[in-house]
Amino acid sequence: MRLDLNNIRAAHERIRPYIHHTPVLTNSRLDKASGASLFFKCENFQKVGAFKARGATNAVFSLDHATAGRGVAADSSGNHGAAVARAAKLRGIPSHIVMPSNSVNVKVRAVNGYGAEVVFCEPTQAAREAACADLIANTGATLIHSFENEDVMAGQGTAAVELLEDVPDLDFVMCPVGGGGLLCGTVVAAKSMRPKIKVVPVEPVNVDDTAQSFRAGRRIVTKKKFTIADGLRTNVGVLNFPIIQRYVDDIVTVSEEAIISAMRRIWETMKIIVEPSAAVPYAAIAEHNIDIVGKRVGIILTGGNVDLDALPWMPAR
Amino acid sequence: MRLDLNNIRAAHERIRPYIHHTPVLTNSRLDKASGASLFFKCENFQKVGAFKARGATNAVFSLDHATAGRGVAADSSGNHGAAVARAAKLRGIPSHIVMPSNSVNVKVRAVNGYGAEVVFCEPTQAAREAACADLIANTGATLIHSFENEDVMAGQGTAAVELLEDVPDLDFVMCPVGGGGLLCGTVVAAKSMRPKIKVVPVEPVNVDDTAQSFRAGRRIVTKKKFTIADGLRTNVGVLNFPIIQRYVDDIVTVSEEAIISAMRRIWETMKIIVEPSAAVPYAAIAEHNIDIVGKRVGIILTGGNVDLDALPWMPAR
Repeated sequence: MRLDLNNIRAAHERIRPYIHHTPVLTNSRLDKASGASLFFKCENFQKVGAFKARGATNAVFSLDHATAGRGVAADSSGNHGAAVARAAKLRGIPSHIVMPSNSVNVKVRAVNGYGAEVVFCEPTQAAREAACADLIANTGATLIHSFENEDVMAGQGTAAVELLEDVPDLDFVMCPVGGGGLLCGTVVAAKSMRPKIKVVPVEPVNVDDTAQSFRAGRRIVTKKKFTIADGLRTNVGVLNFPIIQRYVDDIVTVSEEAIISAMRRIWETMKIIVEPSAAVPYAAIAEHNIDIVGKRVGIILTGGNVDLDALPWMPAR
Repeated sequence: MRLDLNNIRAAHERIRPYIHHTPVLTNSRLDKASGASLFFKCENFQKVGAFKARGATNAVFSLDHATAGRGVAADSSGNHGAAVARAAKLRGIPSHIVMPSNSVNVKVRAVNGYGAEVVFCEPTQAAREAACADLIANTGATLIHSFENEDVMAGQGTAAVELLEDVPDLDFVMCPVGGGGLLCGTVVAAKSMRPKIKVVPVEPVNVDDTAQSFRAGRRIVTKKKFTIADGLRTNVGVLNFPIIQRYVDDIVTVSEEAIISAMRRIWETMKIIVEPSAAVPYAAIAEHNIDIVGKRVGIILTGGNVDLDALPWMPAR
């Protein structure tokens, strides 16, 4: 396996000129409500508004010159697409982003703004994969997968490195899990830097394939229900699951109501904008789905890209 | 005049245990759009969600023991009331907050949460003053005026002190102006610490009594139209206007549309929650109502308390 702390530190050096060292915020009200000390790593303040800038930048800047020159491609409902488009622009190479036709407006605008070619397709996994295969065949571009890519995982792990450098004595690290790119980078970085730390990801119960897989001891692909946490709708990756199975301490699930309530609570209390996926770990804390009383808990707030015209608590239009 | 840098520094020492030294954020997109370097002093992250915590805490902790024991009172549509209630709780004395019956819910809840007695009244200046006078007569409490009070002004000035300590080489400082408490503290602190700095407050054009007064050279009381910037609906204070007239470089006004657009732009770009009043200075920049190209500009983001069920860009319910 290539993913280790050395790779993650090398990724950090590679991407440092292009990303923010994001702040860690605390909040006395949320501490009081939880009975713990919470340290929020604000990747909503990251470039492109999400931690995805880390992995995509590492993957794009890890390509050799000739390969990079043929361009890069990504299949992404949002933040990863914007992150690949931005990284390609920074490296001066073409990018092609496949997006489902039902993507959130603010995310489409972000990708367009970085000068990428946007290829819309039907919002099915099959249509997305077909569109990706077509454009790679036509352009020679390299696919940057959003989580089944070790350079991407290593890049995502740099958020945990910064968090543990800034707050060394954490008892827990929590993050959401979708495909598992962030989680793999996070758990490898965190367990390497602080072996006794517990890493507990959280998943919406409506898309709980990772939790089911973790309990079964084998990767299970589930039929997905809707979740407001649009960044987490994917199944856990084939490359990602063995790392998760090996290193993660537990996986907790949360309801849709808990996610929306947690998102709103973070907005009102911390005065920061986080997207639904980013509120998923705090939802588990607010619902007392994890015992962290008296502990020091790092939480990766993964992103802040939301459509302000369609907030989950607004009446339907 | 009692308001000088020494008083402001003394206020800072007095309130330091009870307030946050708030961060200064920058944003490359907003810099690019403005052609300037913008430094946002995030008082939306302050205790009670607004800079008002500074002035109220200084005023409450400046009272002598016997006076403080009789309690404090405030007449406030929101943030100042919460700030006085919190300061009183910290000092262990009673507080009574007069609030207009049309106050924003989130602000009423905040005041209640600090254990204050809330006294509702009709939303007119006369009714508010009468309710205040009554409760002071009945309780012996001391009125903490939200801007016509030199301890309050000195406390508000501590935000500019922190801003200029963190970013010493600013060319401009901008803040909104309502009653003038923040502006007086800011201009005295900023001009004392850095005499060549320009201090340019911004006012909604619908409540532009301070701008009119500044141009006329005398305090003018105007009939107010509606503004979304609910913190700025008041007339400039009698104690405040002479300080403003003497030290401020210019006053700029902005439309309601510009305020709403600026607020949304800050939310989307910086991923932070600011209330409409806090967006007023950036509205002037976005509308090119002030020439700051190539300059380093400090902007006080005054607060982040908004009703998430009634955002200005939502359809009316």
